[in-house]
Amino acid sequence: MNIDFWFEFGSSYSYPAALRIEALAAERGVAVSWRAFLLGPIFAEQGWNDSPFNLQPAKGRYMWRDLERICQAQEIPFRRPTQFPRNGLLAARIACRFSEAAWLPAFVRAVYRANFEADLDIDAPAIVARCLGSSGEDPAVLIKEAQSPESKARLRAQTDEAVKLDIFGAPSFMAGGELFWGNDRLEDALSWVAEHSD
Amino acid sequence: MNIDFWFEFGSSYSYPAALRIEALAAERGVAVSWRAFLLGPIFAEQGWNDSPFNLQPAKGRYMWRDLERICQAQEIPFRRPTQFPRNGLLAARIACRFSEAAWLPAFVRAVYRANFEADLDIDAPAIVARCLGSSGEDPAVLIKEAQSPESKARLRAQTDEAVKLDIFGAPSFMAGGELFWGNDRLEDALSWVAEHSD
Repeated sequence: MNIDFWFEFGSSYSYPAALRIEALAAERGVAVSWRAFLLGPIFAEQGWNDSPFNLQPAKGRYMWRDLERICQAQEIPFRRPTQFPRNGLLAARIACRFSEAAWLPAFVRAVYRANFEADLDIDAPAIVARCLGSSGEDPAVLIKEAQSPESKARLRAQTDEAVKLDIFGAPSFMAGGELFWGNDRLEDALSWVAEHSD
Repeated sequence: MNIDFWFEFGSSYSYPAALRIEALAAERGVAVSWRAFLLGPIFAEQGWNDSPFNLQPAKGRYMWRDLERICQAQEIPFRRPTQFPRNGLLAARIACRFSEAAWLPAFVRAVYRANFEADLDIDAPAIVARCLGSSGEDPAVLIKEAQSPESKARLRAQTDEAVKLDIFGAPSFMAGGELFWGNDRLEDALSWVAEHSD
């Protein structure tokens, strides 16, 4: 049984999902495929040059309070970032290039924590390198490899795949052929996999 | 203990919320204030001339499937309306003018069922009259009263109040001074009231 977890490092509601998914999936015997993508090109197709949470101020104010309540209820540390959304391009290229690596889930969580707990600039290679700290690999080598033309093309192709799957926001989950959108659908998506697998 | 239920008759996710709220609130000893409003003016402020579910086709396709799954899980009959969103102006004027009437909750549910179960044109006075059938009042008299200048002004004022409360979508819930948005936040909103009342 498998669930595809589609996430964007700048996305606020992806933060609690990224921190929760591995343990929740393991409880149910579901494997997680980590699928980084970029929301920027998808929003640009809608004519948006920014997050909808910035373009719609009332919705943005609501999101920050809602996220605060969610993190409090789930005991997830949260500090509202002083910059939103942050550019997760480098981290996404790494997550896409090394999606199968054993250290990948810990790296993804470290980047989200840097952004939404420590309020750090996840676009800075030094911060990304620190998030790679527990990988057991040389961060400089990983970062260089993630910026190769092949790695860049890979993230572009993965973002194209998200569009083909009708993904329009993050986090999204593909579970047994069904799309689920939002941190608040994570449990539903996992249940769907469990109920609809052979 | 009280919860304000802000709903728009054209709103798809307001449908399961409208059908579920009274029983869930009663279980917790929470009173429901029924607050009809219009999303049109709020969307127009964003520069939108249609529902975001029509303006963003991928999001719209997702919403219909998500709503279908929700209704199936909750055993709520659902048929995708052939027209979306439908114009709920007359029904909203009635719901706003007679918000305290004992028959109001049954009327609200009847209008939502007409729209999302029977696929009927809730803008038609004959359909609205049918939804008033169990009120024990003369539908023609209620409809006429709801179209008085005072009743029209009342709905405009209530929509203005929604904007002041930072409401940007439906369904929304005001619970103990906190805003909750979406059918999937109904239980959270009710729990918030229960936990934060004196």
